[in-house]
Formats: sequence, C-alpha cells, structure tokens
Amino acid sequence: MFDTIRWDGDAVVLIDQRYLPVKEDYLACRDAGAVASAITDMVVRGAPAIGVTAALGIALGLKQSGAKDLESLRERMEEVCALMAGTRPTAVNLFWAIDRMKRRFEELSEGGLEAVVEGLEREAVAMRAEDIDINRRMGAHGAALVPDGARILTHCNAGALATAGYGTALGMMRAAVEAGKKIEVIADETRPFLQGARLTAWELERDNIPVTLITDNMAGHFMARGEIDLVITGSDRIASNGDVCNKIGTYSVAVLAKEHGIPFYAVAPVSTFDLSIASGKEIPIEERPLEEVSHFQGVRVAPEGITIRNPAFDVTPNAMVTAIICENGIARAPYSETLRRIAKSEQAA
Amino acid sequence: MFDTIRWDGDAVVLIDQRYLPVKEDYLACRDAGAVASAITDMVVRGAPAIGVTAALGIALGLKQSGAKDLESLRERMEEVCALMAGTRPTAVNLFWAIDRMKRRFEELSEGGLEAVVEGLEREAVAMRAEDIDINRRMGAHGAALVPDGARILTHCNAGALATAGYGTALGMMRAAVEAGKKIEVIADETRPFLQGARLTAWELERDNIPVTLITDNMAGHFMARGEIDLVITGSDRIASNGDVCNKIGTYSVAVLAKEHGIPFYAVAPVSTFDLSIASGKEIPIEERPLEEVSHFQGVRVAPEGITIRNPAFDVTPNAMVTAIICENGIARAPYSETLRRIAKSEQAA
Repeated sequence: MFDTIRWDGDAVVLIDQRYLPVKEDYLACRDAGAVASAITDMVVRGAPAIGVTAALGIALGLKQSGAKDLESLRERMEEVCALMAGTRPTAVNLFWAIDRMKRRFEELSEGGLEAVVEGLEREAVAMRAEDIDINRRMGAHGAALVPDGARILTHCNAGALATAGYGTALGMMRAAVEAGKKIEVIADETRPFLQGARLTAWELERDNIPVTLITDNMAGHFMARGEIDLVITGSDRIASNGDVCNKIGTYSVAVLAKEHGIPFYAVAPVSTFDLSIASGKEIPIEERPLEEVSHFQGVRVAPEGITIRNPAFDVTPNAMVTAIICENGIARAPYSETLRRIAKSEQAA
Repeated sequence: MFDTIRWDGDAVVLIDQRYLPVKEDYLACRDAGAVASAITDMVVRGAPAIGVTAALGIALGLKQSGAKDLESLRERMEEVCALMAGTRPTAVNLFWAIDRMKRRFEELSEGGLEAVVEGLEREAVAMRAEDIDINRRMGAHGAALVPDGARILTHCNAGALATAGYGTALGMMRAAVEAGKKIEVIADETRPFLQGARLTAWELERDNIPVTLITDNMAGHFMARGEIDLVITGSDRIASNGDVCNKIGTYSVAVLAKEHGIPFYAVAPVSTFDLSIASGKEIPIEERPLEEVSHFQGVRVAPEGITIRNPAFDVTPNAMVTAIICENGIARAPYSETLRRIAKSEQAA
C-alpha cells in the first residue's frame, strides 16, 4: 500500500495527487510554507487528509522555529496556524486540526518550550494514526448499510488518498468487502480535477475492488436503467442541520438519487461536523483557478478569454441525505438532534 | 462566419470539430468513404449536420460511381447508403436523410442515369439550404419562450456547428437576441467530447453572445442558487410520445430542471421526430470508444486497463419536457397527439 501522508521527522512526505495515476511521485515538504503550498495546490486534498497534513505542518513549523523562549514560539505558532488556515476555506477539518493543535499548545506550555515542540509533534503524529483508526470504525458502522451485490456510485475521492489511510466513503466500501460482501463501484470522473478518474479508480484497482469509470453526466442515465443501488460520498463540512458540503457535483448526484429512490449516504468523521453553523448556507464555497476548467493537464479545451466559473464545492440539503456515518455510528434525520448527540457519544463506538 | 458543411462540387468540406477551438481546420472529404469516416470520427457531429453531410456524401458517391447504367448506379446507391447508415446509430436525421435521397432516386430514375446523379446532387445541396432555413423558423417560434434577461443553460452543442448553420437550441437563442432580448448562456462542457467547452463556447463568443463555461456537474449548484432560468437543448431523436434522446447528460440536466421548477425545452426539426417508435426505450444508444473517457485530448487521465462505460446519448422522458420547438411551431404535452399534428402542419409555419 501507499502512504498518503508520512512524517519522517523533518519533513511531511505526500504522495503527489496531481500526477496520479500516471506517475506515483512523493513530495517531501521540508518546511511549513511548503506544506501550506501543497495543500493549496492540491498535492494533497480530501478533508481529513488536509487536517492531518496541516497538523504535521504546524509541528514542523515549530520544530524549525529556532525560538529561544515560549513567547517567540507562541508567535511562530500563530504565524504557522494562520498560514495553514489560509490554504483552503471549505473543509472544516483543517480548522478543527488547527484548533486542536492550539489547545494542545496551551496544555503543554507550562512544561516549557521543548515540551511544547515535542508534544505537538507527538500530537500531529497521533492525529494521523487516529484518522486511520476512525476510518476503520466508520467503515464497520457503514458496512451494515451496504447490501451484498450492491452497485455503488461514488463521487470524487473519499478514499485512502483523502485521509491518512483507508478512507471514509471508500473505507465503508472496503469494510463491506472485508465483511465478505460483493460490491461494484461506479466512480464518476469528477471534473474539473478528476479525483474520480485519477484517484478513486486508481486506489480501488489496487485493492482489487471492481470499479467502472463514467463521466459525471452519465450518473442519471445509469440510475434510470437501474444500474446503481446506492450513493456513498465523503464530506468536507456538515452543518448542524445535516446539510452536507462536498465536492462540486455531489448535489447533482443527490438530486438524481432522490429522483430514483436511491439511498444517499455521507461518510465523515466528527471532525467534519461544524455544529457552530445552522445550515449549509453559512459554508464558504472555495472558487478554484479557472485553468482547472479551461485546461486539462495543460491542454487547452476552451476558447481563450472565455468566462468560466469554478466553485469547488456544493451543498446537499439534509432532506436528501439518507444517513450520515461517522466513527460513533449512524445518524439519521432529524439531524439537528442526532448529529449533536452522536458527536458526543464516543463511548458508544 | 464559418461553414460547418460546404459542397464544392467534388468534395464535402467540413470544419474539423475535433480540433476546435484550438485550430480552425477544414477537411475536404473527396469520396463517400471519407465522408462516412468523418461522421464516425466526429469531424462533424450534431443530428441535423450528420443528416446533411450524409446526403452530400451519397451525392458524391453517385457522382464518382463510374456507373454505365441505372442498374449499376442503383447498386452503388445501395452501397453508399449502407455506408452512411453504418456510421452512427442514434441520430434519426441520418436515416431520414438517407430515406429522402432513396425516394428521390426513384422519382428521378425514369429520367435516366444522368438525371439521377445531377438531381441527387441538387437534392443534397437543397437539404443543406433547407436546414438553415428550418433553423431560422424554429428560432422565430422559440424566441417567444425566452424571457428578456434569461440565463439559459445549454448542454452539448446544438448550434451552427451541429447543423448546416444557425443552430437549433442556439438558433433559438440567436433569434431571441435578434429580437432584442438580453440573454446569458451557461454552457456546460459536455464530457467526454467537450462539445460545450470546445464548440458552444466558441461559436457564441464569435457571435458576441455572453457565455459562461461550467463543468457538467455544476449545473445543479447554479440552479439551487437561482442562477439558471431555463434549459434549452437540441435532440438526436424524439419518439412519438415526446421522449427526447440527446447527448449523454441531458437527462441529468432535465432531472435537475424538474427539481428546481425550471422549464426544459428541446429544439429540433421534424426530421428528428421518429414517429415510428412508441417511446425512447426503442432508441439504440451508441457506445463510443472508451478512450474518449480515459483520455483527454490525447492525455491519459485514468489508470490503464480500467473498466469504462461510454454511452453517447440518454433519454429524457416526456414528462420532463416543457415543450418541443420545431420549424412548424411549439408542441406541448400530450406529445403523442401534438407531435403527429405538428409534423404534418407545414403550412402552419
């Protein structure tokens, strides 16, 4: 297996997701600035993966700070956290990870500078390991919802490549396979960045899970022909009312699933829940560079100078979400009650 | 302006739509085989354009037959028609054009070999001119349905490039603009062949009609935000019950339009109606080469050896079609009555 994110003591090593599946390349980010750029440029992407990467980037920034006292270290901490927070606005896991590192900083600070630097390194490394563990727990809960023989549509990549390992949506599929179920995955290519074609297809192939690639606009056609039984996606931020923000195109898939009476599941850790906001309307939607749409791996496909829109995410309203699967179990409507309860129910897991 | 299809006496000259918008190249097809290949390989595409091109290809084939008598000419006619019929299975305009040329052959045959060859050349050239005229009539009918200030989503290319000129769906938009209305067009890129990004964006830019390019999976997002007022597409075959077969992805757009209460219009000449079939279920859906999905202008984007599906068309059920606009006027449900009536009502136009 590959490592999506690796910590080697003085670098955060990332599989470079811009070049998959053509090239399996690893990028060593040797300072916090390089880590932040890797997030912005989508060397690494996927809400949980971004969170873990940012935490490791913060640890790296402190380790290299050269600070002589706790006050300078705290200043450096502020800088590095601001750097990470400025990378991508939508995935809440990023801010969750930054907040966790900040809290840990304060907890450790009475032990002095060295205790903070070493403690935050341990914290970030632990977050990476926890993420994989959490994904396995989500998978175990979710696998029960996958019928034997299911043909599952997934959008974007919510797999090992979107997390520290195992995956959220794809983790649920892996767990179903490990439970002895036969499944078939239909991956849509997910324009403009092609996470489906390039990443989901690649990682499922490596796991010998049968996968068929389609373009985004074919999903309705195959649903109408009865060739899709359920939809499973990840999420970048889930509002307290259960509105699910995820990769652009998820909403269209959810509308199609509703039209065809197909269950729509979102799989995401509690760190993806944003219980501070009432609904998805409050989620900032990142607009990405227009070249992602006008070009294709460097090849121009649209006339020069044309007007383009490139929102990177959309919001699926809670009414279209059959269930939300997290590490603590399965939440169903009314989400404004169930999400709060399940977020706190760690012991139930 | 450019010519989509030109007849120069001993060649069918086509703008090569595979290379637009990067290169404006013209391909001269100097025999019937070259014309058939150009249709198969999508040098030319769009249901009405395919019909006109096939008719000209048949005329070219007869002109070059070297037949010494009417019987040999009739044999050559059978061969050339079979060649054209084998190019693409879904667009019914192709078969309509072939049938019309065959009928004309018989009508002319008592005048002898030369009368047939000359007459079929005139017929094909007339079909090209008629197609442009028909599009202008459709546009005039349809323009009334476009509110001033409308933001119109269109899928694929149903423009001057999909016809002999002016276009069906884009013709309706051109007519609205000519009637003094302000419109904005949202063109989805239309994977896998990118007719939206490459062709619709290109031809609307040349006409100074404001156009914004999005990926296919963004349509739902913009509808949910109230940024799309209506949908206008072309069609490749319309069944007698009003089921509309069109470029893959049209059905998904229609489901989204229904969810958001947005009108969905199909614009197509009577030659696109297939009144011999009861519903869209009877329409053969072409499966195109898998490289269209796994590659992007020659650049690989999916892992090697992966399973891929590439249906080129889908069917939108009549209940989702607000109206069908043809050269004779506007048809609304119940289509099983109105389409038959409007197909015959040429005088009403």
